[in-house]
Amino acid sequence: MSTVPIHIVKLGGDVVDDTTKRQRVFAQLQQLGTPFLLVHGGGKVATQLSEQLGVMTQMIEGRRITDAETLRIVTMVYAGLINKGIVAELQSLKLNAIGLSGVDADLLRAHKRDHSEIDYGFVGDIDTVQTSFLLKLLNDSMIPVIAPLTHDGAGQLLNTNADSVTTRIACALAEHLPVRVLMLMDKAGVLHDVEDAQSLIAEIDPTLYQDMRARGAIHTGMIAKLDNAFELAEHNIDVLLCSWRDVLHGTRVVTG
Amino acid sequence: MSTVPIHIVKLGGDVVDDTTKRQRVFAQLQQLGTPFLLVHGGGKVATQLSEQLGVMTQMIEGRRITDAETLRIVTMVYAGLINKGIVAELQSLKLNAIGLSGVDADLLRAHKRDHSEIDYGFVGDIDTVQTSFLLKLLNDSMIPVIAPLTHDGAGQLLNTNADSVTTRIACALAEHLPVRVLMLMDKAGVLHDVEDAQSLIAEIDPTLYQDMRARGAIHTGMIAKLDNAFELAEHNIDVLLCSWRDVLHGTRVVTG
Repeated sequence: MSTVPIHIVKLGGDVVDDTTKRQRVFAQLQQLGTPFLLVHGGGKVATQLSEQLGVMTQMIEGRRITDAETLRIVTMVYAGLINKGIVAELQSLKLNAIGLSGVDADLLRAHKRDHSEIDYGFVGDIDTVQTSFLLKLLNDSMIPVIAPLTHDGAGQLLNTNADSVTTRIACALAEHLPVRVLMLMDKAGVLHDVEDAQSLIAEIDPTLYQDMRARGAIHTGMIAKLDNAFELAEHNIDVLLCSWRDVLHGTRVVTG
Repeated sequence: MSTVPIHIVKLGGDVVDDTTKRQRVFAQLQQLGTPFLLVHGGGKVATQLSEQLGVMTQMIEGRRITDAETLRIVTMVYAGLINKGIVAELQSLKLNAIGLSGVDADLLRAHKRDHSEIDYGFVGDIDTVQTSFLLKLLNDSMIPVIAPLTHDGAGQLLNTNADSVTTRIACALAEHLPVRVLMLMDKAGVLHDVEDAQSLIAEIDPTLYQDMRARGAIHTGMIAKLDNAFELAEHNIDVLLCSWRDVLHGTRVVTG
């Protein structure tokens, strides 16, 4: 396990809700044969269930305001429906997956977000990642599948953004072993010319990134993703922005 | 871990839905200091959610008929809401719990029930229990909290009765280490005279049981529980029928 990087993959809404994309990603990861860990969302299904139950979904800057009823819903959807569905699918491929949330094995300890203006409700910002149990699982060739819920250690579950969960777990594991984060997208990676699918950039560093941003060549939707990617790269994490069709090739994000 | 028995406790509807009872049981288990494992149900909450979603709940002989929509609901309620709620509560007591369902780590492999007359839907009868992972967790002083879902190995989740899950896990673990099963009830155990709370029977064997049954001294609701208890006892499992108020004392079930 020492030299092969652990692959950490966040399954965002478009992949997690699409059987074809999901299975394509799993098949490639299986073929790669490296240890891997998945973090998933499930926002669309949570929103659907909220509607069915007549619970209002309130979003501020892409973050779900989580009242008590919404917390019940995301706990059911993320840790139950989506998590166990993914695990069953991986088990059918003979991949020994185990579904966890941040409360299990005390994996992700968080505090309720304290914001001067907005009451986010039961939203958690992560304080600690318990890596020892994850390392044991990976060492036993198991595949942790992580639902984006955390807890405060006093019995309260909290809702945490799946990107934050991915980043924090990647940084924590990178202190122990080589980590590669795959950021899945629809395109093949970062393109010189967004209209030209052949113009894939093999490697992007901060200088090229700033240059492209100055020229307006980075799609606004990509900025948050790339900012996050550079933050990971600074923690010695190998970051690949790639299509769900091909998780081997894409744009590597490197520092300096 | 060799001589202290693992305590296996099924949290039935009346305990799992009642904060006072639940916390009382957890506090006693914590004080005991032995390794333990919980199996829980969650039927009442599943029925409530079904009603809210306009999904009919159909029960035959106490078994839930599980169509695709009902399977979604029990997956959300059992593996999500109830399971993570219990784990959060245990974590708040500094007990390192981990919530699992039968699909996680391939714990409980089952087949879809094939019945000549009744279509139970996505109901699973357990074929195999993967004990090695459970033993590792117990050896690491972790507390497995198990939701009664299984899988068929081909990607299909299945709904399995929590009593069956408890029995099968207890028998499988008993091949490796001493196991005690606590069967929680409202009364202190089996009573000579159901009207007299002081008439607790300390130990019941098949002869006494048959004798009491012949005299009509066993409440009908207790028969299934006692039959199950004797089956466990035959597998060298120490079985205690006890009140949730006092899990140290009650009626021991012994063979011959």
